[in-house]
Amino acid sequence: MTLSSLKLATNYSTISKAMVCEKHGQPKDVLRLKELTIPKIKDDEVLVKFLAAPINPSDINQIEGVYPIKPRFKKYGAVGGNEGVAEVVAAGNKVKNLTVGDWVIPDTKAFGTWQTFAASPENELQKISKNISKISASTISVNPPTAYRMLKDFVNLKKGDVIIQNGANSAVGQAVIQIAKAWGIKTINVVRDRPNFDELADQLHKLGATLVIKEEDLRANSTRELVKNLGSPVRLGLNCVGGKSANGITRLLGHNASLVTYGGMSKQPLTFGTGPFIFKNLKACGFWVSRWNKEASKKDKQYMFDDLCELIRGGYLAEPWHDETKWELSDDNKTLNRKFMKALSKAGASFGNKKQILTFE
Amino acid sequence: MTLSSLKLATNYSTISKAMVCEKHGQPKDVLRLKELTIPKIKDDEVLVKFLAAPINPSDINQIEGVYPIKPRFKKYGAVGGNEGVAEVVAAGNKVKNLTVGDWVIPDTKAFGTWQTFAASPENELQKISKNISKISASTISVNPPTAYRMLKDFVNLKKGDVIIQNGANSAVGQAVIQIAKAWGIKTINVVRDRPNFDELADQLHKLGATLVIKEEDLRANSTRELVKNLGSPVRLGLNCVGGKSANGITRLLGHNASLVTYGGMSKQPLTFGTGPFIFKNLKACGFWVSRWNKEASKKDKQYMFDDLCELIRGGYLAEPWHDETKWELSDDNKTLNRKFMKALSKAGASFGNKKQILTFE
Repeated sequence: MTLSSLKLATNYSTISKAMVCEKHGQPKDVLRLKELTIPKIKDDEVLVKFLAAPINPSDINQIEGVYPIKPRFKKYGAVGGNEGVAEVVAAGNKVKNLTVGDWVIPDTKAFGTWQTFAASPENELQKISKNISKISASTISVNPPTAYRMLKDFVNLKKGDVIIQNGANSAVGQAVIQIAKAWGIKTINVVRDRPNFDELADQLHKLGATLVIKEEDLRANSTRELVKNLGSPVRLGLNCVGGKSANGITRLLGHNASLVTYGGMSKQPLTFGTGPFIFKNLKACGFWVSRWNKEASKKDKQYMFDDLCELIRGGYLAEPWHDETKWELSDDNKTLNRKFMKALSKAGASFGNKKQILTFE
Repeated sequence: MTLSSLKLATNYSTISKAMVCEKHGQPKDVLRLKELTIPKIKDDEVLVKFLAAPINPSDINQIEGVYPIKPRFKKYGAVGGNEGVAEVVAAGNKVKNLTVGDWVIPDTKAFGTWQTFAASPENELQKISKNISKISASTISVNPPTAYRMLKDFVNLKKGDVIIQNGANSAVGQAVIQIAKAWGIKTINVVRDRPNFDELADQLHKLGATLVIKEEDLRANSTRELVKNLGSPVRLGLNCVGGKSANGITRLLGHNASLVTYGGMSKQPLTFGTGPFIFKNLKACGFWVSRWNKEASKKDKQYMFDDLCELIRGGYLAEPWHDETKWELSDDNKTLNRKFMKALSKAGASFGNKKQILTFE
């Protein structure tokens, strides 16, 4: 059976081809392609056809069982993937805010986006602009909001202010650079040294980075001089690494600054001197976009996604660096599975690589 | 010359007997008793006679030169001491808000309170109720406000809420227990093990402590059970120790809690797991009462000191555990110096001992 043979109506059942796990484990071991029967949708439900979905590190952790959000296990197992964009292809009679043709992103945890079709209550979906690419739309739920909220919610930044971040080449890091640039905020970007450092620095500068610094140089006097020459104290630090790196960026923060932690790639704990906390009045806190999503109003979410779509349309926020894996209509199940596993192996490789995105014809 | 021979009028110069240092160093080496001539006060100044002044750890650090606030060095050197209570004995013609007989505490940094008399612009002093003991008044500037602000400004605590603190036997810790008790807040109090632990725990319970726990037991399952049985998540942690102790109390915090650091007695840095920051939405910040003093309005300060005086008068906030060292009118300079040095040596001994308070006849 190929994708083309699926029926797209409310009064017929639909088959979804999905990457499913029946238990926790290494994704390569526990995930496999399954054909799921989606029954006729209910009155408050929509049927959506996925257009694109990335493989994020947290998707992998979720399947491993080491993430605070667990997969939604049902009789047949749980569909992997939390992020993606889909098009509404059918809507129940009582659906109010969505119509056929709308683009939507998940507005609930563990939606299951690595599949061709899904039925969902309309309130578990967020409508999104169709005037952006499906790559941008499929990656707008997690990383751009993380960057956007961290730049908005912790320190009242104004034009000319300076922030610092580590893991600056991550998808969030790229979004931080671009959104900050659009808002007139200077960014100090810390990345680990690597053979192609100059090339990476060049790419980050092209995105709008003010400074790009090697993690190894964080404590150098020359770095302190560079930072000083920006003319404003560093008011916000964004940390997805932990350990020495977090400590290093904390040392460059000015008085009353905040350090926001949203990841811990080094698996090292956060270590801070007591003095700076007391005498420089630093704050350290965490940010988890899933919590924000849960707690924010529909209105606040719509405002943010409209704003992000504007940034994308205005050319301020580019698609993340990515590889695309196409699930073609003509692919048989074995091919679909093989293609997914290849993308998965690339997604699981070390931090800072290109995002792996599955697209559906 | 004895204290009794001092002249107490605006149109005469006055002699103050003061503990003065001419440079940074170990207080016992650099401090010595000096007679300072206080010229006729200016129109906007008052002349005050000190009643009592404690020797705080930060006073010692200040003289050593390792504290962010430095002594006020003048030609003759700098008078030690930051906290104390004094009585207004003369007021210049343009003084508006103070009159002879008022009690005042310093409202500026590095006032120099280890002396018998001082002249000061009225705006560098805060008027305080005379209906409390001079011991309470002399120790009301630093520790009770630290406890009061930390309980008020970081988490919106309500009756029945639970907080945790280490160094619970410190002067701030004692104030925290009592103010929390007065406000209906439960306290988990962590102290290091010691030969007289039971006696100390008993003293803390008498002040109003809900639980008293040994630092060594912080990670025990039994402790987790005790905390759970309080029926509410721990919403605030107060840390003056750092290192393992801070990490231990952080593990007992509930979701959305704050850890406020106001000291670092262990000289170990703060270490936190990344996960709790992100997934439990913890916040860590510092508190320094000197910054609060600098930034708060006169009105806010007056409100707080009135509130603290009410707590003292109501019997909710006792004098800190202390030893009194009396500077008598009949003492000669050598005796005054010797008495001070004895109190200083006790003040410099390990953390958690009784507060050393100098009183002036």
